[in-house]
Amino acid sequence: MKARQIHEAAGQRTFAVIMDAGDEVMAALEEFARTEKLSAAQVSAIGAFSRATLAFWERSTREYRKIPVEEQTEVLSLLGDIALTEDGQPKIHLHAVLGRADASTLGGHLMDGVAEPTLEVIVTESPAHLRRVFDPDKGLALIRP
Amino acid sequence: MKARQIHEAAGQRTFAVIMDAGDEVMAALEEFARTEKLSAAQVSAIGAFSRATLAFWERSTREYRKIPVEEQTEVLSLLGDIALTEDGQPKIHLHAVLGRADASTLGGHLMDGVAEPTLEVIVTESPAHLRRVFDPDKGLALIRP
Amino acid sequence: MKARQIHEAAGQRTFAVIMDAGDEVMAALEEFARTEKLSAAQVSAIGAFSRATLAFWERSTREYRKIPVEEQTEVLSLLGDIALTEDGQPKIHLHAVLGRADASTLGGHLMDGVAEPTLEVIVTESPAHLRRVFDPDKGLALIRP
Repeated sequence: MKARQIHEAAGQRTFAVIMDAGDEVMAALEEFARTEKLSAAQVSAIGAFSRATLAFWERSTREYRKIPVEEQTEVLSLLGDIALTEDGQPKIHLHAVLGRADASTLGGHLMDGVAEPTLEVIVTESPAHLRRVFDPDKGLALIRP
Repeated sequence: MKARQIHEAAGQRTFAVIMDAGDEVMAALEEFARTEKLSAAQVSAIGAFSRATLAFWERSTREYRKIPVEEQTEVLSLLGDIALTEDGQPKIHLHAVLGRADASTLGGHLMDGVAEPTLEVIVTESPAHLRRVFDPDKGLALIRP
Repeated sequence: MKARQIHEAAGQRTFAVIMDAGDEVMAALEEFARTEKLSAAQVSAIGAFSRATLAFWERSTREYRKIPVEEQTEVLSLLGDIALTEDGQPKIHLHAVLGRADASTLGGHLMDGVAEPTLEVIVTESPAHLRRVFDPDKGLALIRP
């Protein structure tokens, strides 16, 4: 992973974060958020994965069901945000649409994904803090703006 | 729906707009655009819907064909813009990609969608005005920059 | 194609670039990038195509395999960036998710796409330069931040 700040205005920094082949995107972005002390940010990326784990939030069980994707896919869109947990740790929340060799698509909440050959991520920081608070009724940590 | 301004620079405001379970996103964003007097904005969101209506613009009839989605889906991407109609009212234009329980996807022009458990929307205002003008040849209101 | 600058802050310009029916998006954006001397930018778009060519990067051959889409589709998401090649020319890199009449989706690396009736593109410039350098091992020009 290599990162570079490409813009700053009124406390808002924009970074290009380029993943190398083999980088796992959730771990790499969490490390990046910690290093740069990001407390609220938007994420947008394209690239490709050698493997990934998607997930679907089951309304009845209030749990994520994992869907492994054990093939090379194009990352068609990877969108989401970075907020802080109740104890101040960065929490990455991303949804992915992946393209297969025949142009069919798969998508879900991203649990993990390994870049191959690259993933081009734009991270746009906000000067504000966004905090996620665990909602026991939903089984999820939701943003409280 | 709860909203918070998370950035401002040179007349451009960025908002985090968090939908609660049961909120219909098109109506909620229209209300938000009216309250904040938005005349041009970009929209990007992820989250989940309990139900939605997608649509496809038929080139031959120049009309939208509705496709109801009567199941819980992940909102994998929800992208688009806010502009003004000819009589100065905010008009939301969004395209959605939705993920089903098996990670297969559906997508189209979004007519309506009900958040469950949440939808995290980033609205980035532009100081400019963008106006949509009805094009009788296409049967659509197109942006005239 | 018609374009209009809708924001500027600290050297970062944002443009609304509206494609007319019949415009080929890759050629039109390359021309736009050249005219505005963009050296690094983010791209996000929605709209519709009358036809397009998607592609999948084959890891084994390190080449793109083309997938023609010879039908009207909704452009559900079109995300990516503009960077410079080693000889200073703008290089557009976009991934697309397209929606068919039945709301099923197709996606991949975008080779070309013809707008019909329109494509609404937001281009956000960064004051920095981003450069792509050919990686013979991958058969691709990768961003070196």
